[in-house]
Amino acid sequence: MSPFSLDSIETPAALVDVDRMEANLQKAAAYTREHGLRWRPHTKTHKVPELAARQLEAGATGVTVATPREAEVMGAVAEDVLLAYSPVGASKLKRLMALSRRVRLSVGLDSREVLAGLAEAAREAGRTVGVLVELDLGMRRVGVQTPEVAVALAREAASAQGLEYQGVMFYPGHIRMPMAEQGPALAEVSRRLGTFLEALGAAGLKPGIVSGGSTPTLWRSHEVAGMNEIRPGLTPFFDRASAWTGVCGWEEVAYSVLATVVSTSVAGQAVIDAGSKALAKEELPMGGYGALVDRPDVVVHALSEEHGMLDLSRTSWRPRVGDRVRVVPNHVCVSVNLQDELWAVRGGQVTGRWEVMGRGRGPV
Amino acid sequence: MSPFSLDSIETPAALVDVDRMEANLQKAAAYTREHGLRWRPHTKTHKVPELAARQLEAGATGVTVATPREAEVMGAVAEDVLLAYSPVGASKLKRLMALSRRVRLSVGLDSREVLAGLAEAAREAGRTVGVLVELDLGMRRVGVQTPEVAVALAREAASAQGLEYQGVMFYPGHIRMPMAEQGPALAEVSRRLGTFLEALGAAGLKPGIVSGGSTPTLWRSHEVAGMNEIRPGLTPFFDRASAWTGVCGWEEVAYSVLATVVSTSVAGQAVIDAGSKALAKEELPMGGYGALVDRPDVVVHALSEEHGMLDLSRTSWRPRVGDRVRVVPNHVCVSVNLQDELWAVRGGQVTGRWEVMGRGRGPV
Repeated sequence: MSPFSLDSIETPAALVDVDRMEANLQKAAAYTREHGLRWRPHTKTHKVPELAARQLEAGATGVTVATPREAEVMGAVAEDVLLAYSPVGASKLKRLMALSRRVRLSVGLDSREVLAGLAEAAREAGRTVGVLVELDLGMRRVGVQTPEVAVALAREAASAQGLEYQGVMFYPGHIRMPMAEQGPALAEVSRRLGTFLEALGAAGLKPGIVSGGSTPTLWRSHEVAGMNEIRPGLTPFFDRASAWTGVCGWEEVAYSVLATVVSTSVAGQAVIDAGSKALAKEELPMGGYGALVDRPDVVVHALSEEHGMLDLSRTSWRPRVGDRVRVVPNHVCVSVNLQDELWAVRGGQVTGRWEVMGRGRGPV
Repeated sequence: MSPFSLDSIETPAALVDVDRMEANLQKAAAYTREHGLRWRPHTKTHKVPELAARQLEAGATGVTVATPREAEVMGAVAEDVLLAYSPVGASKLKRLMALSRRVRLSVGLDSREVLAGLAEAAREAGRTVGVLVELDLGMRRVGVQTPEVAVALAREAASAQGLEYQGVMFYPGHIRMPMAEQGPALAEVSRRLGTFLEALGAAGLKPGIVSGGSTPTLWRSHEVAGMNEIRPGLTPFFDRASAWTGVCGWEEVAYSVLATVVSTSVAGQAVIDAGSKALAKEELPMGGYGALVDRPDVVVHALSEEHGMLDLSRTSWRPRVGDRVRVVPNHVCVSVNLQDELWAVRGGQVTGRWEVMGRGRGPV
């Protein structure tokens, strides 16, 4: 595709600064290499197979997905796919088993019910599916609660025909504070992980894979003793929450939503055509739903479905109807999920277009 | 399509109870008839042309849309389309002017810049576009602030070639409290509207259309003096917020998201496969992000992207992995916007499927 001016794109539109993205990928690759960590990035953030391919080229050992659709889309470019989600129901299992035989599928799960259903589906399909026993290390969302249950589930995975016990996984999603303050929480995760690893080892079920990691804790992943794989999702893009935690600088955020000012009728405010159906509505402790790439002091202080309200109280800048701005949303994953496509940009030029293929639910 | 069991549908899936929807439509139609109000429902809620057609059959005088895509999709079934949104930028204007000539398009706007751009596009296309001057009656989002500016803009619309001045519009989106408490806020809206209508009348610019209305204020619309049209969006479906304001009973909510329990590892909680990418994350004063159709005391107390956490602390019900539930989200419009399709259901049977055609941004 020949580059063309960003000015010709209809707003709202999702933009990816390709130079920033590339730098972010290289930084994550270098970090994981330095610390000997496997890197299986969660592709729910971008949902774009071309970007998963780019992550694999940069050194990722596989990809992580959350839904059958994402597995189908990413299975076209990745040979190693971890479904970090318990698949429940005949339809989901059938779709997973229909993935290309080239794909080594593994699944994170936390119950005997899910394990039994998966084993049966795998046997019927004549496949072998890897199993990671999901542990709860403090998030209190999913994951087995005690070493005893983990051992029992791992034992069942190890003996079930159709399954291969590969290790454990967890998601420290409860650690969302700024990076500098994460020490005690990470130490607690290490401690809890240790009790699980000890019990599994003692039972002869030492996990080969100990998969964890998150974007907020990304650069401190090496502090979690025993973890040998991370699955951060946001690394290619980052977002306002990432900048808030300090996992990236504001100038490193590669994703934004291009929007147009449509009204300046209310004093102290400019309204843009990117609302909750483009940016998504997620709260952050610092307030607001996004901020401008070039003017981080200008915050989206309120959102309707198709209107974003820019607070002009901390700036002397006075935009006019028709002006265009780039907004960094609080949470990039849910904003991407609202887009049909992402536009690759370099400076003021559009250099490519990616369909958000993993969006939606139906089969590819 | 032959009816089939709901059990065979993969979750998460968006369901519409067709009997409840039909009752809701009839109730809205009866109310608007009784009070002599034009009814131009906002179709951003469902984004489905077949449902817009159903609203028109039930007595709607036209439809309201927010985006060029919605205008294109709804223009296929409606002859009267109000874009309740200022169109800014060449691409949007071009798409609007390319709508079928059968469509009578009108646009709400609040600035000379938007008016000038629209007039130019209309002249070039050889069309006449209706104009409603958008007023701010207390929401402080968009809309002209003073009667003087409204008169000036109406005068410009009345004299501009390509445009036809039709009246005024406003959206009382700031009135979100329970119905019984809305009296003073509605009186203030009436009072402010009166000052605008008086000035416009005195200037010989008496509006033919005075378009307002919202879902929370739906059944009190007749209390707003001078308003002769309403544009509620949620009437076919409603949601948890609607039930909270009292605009509908819990048993009248016609939209829900079917989900499957995927984990019960954490005590006092069941996790379902509908998260913020199916329900959308919007706060309500009552807390939580949704509640079960059949057990409104069971609330979705936390959301991840693909996980919804059901709080079991106020119920003795203990679901098991694989059980299915129906969740009413806080805000139906943003949940629908996350779906590929809506399933029409009656009892436990699926009787139809509607594609959410108005979703997304690109041309149809």
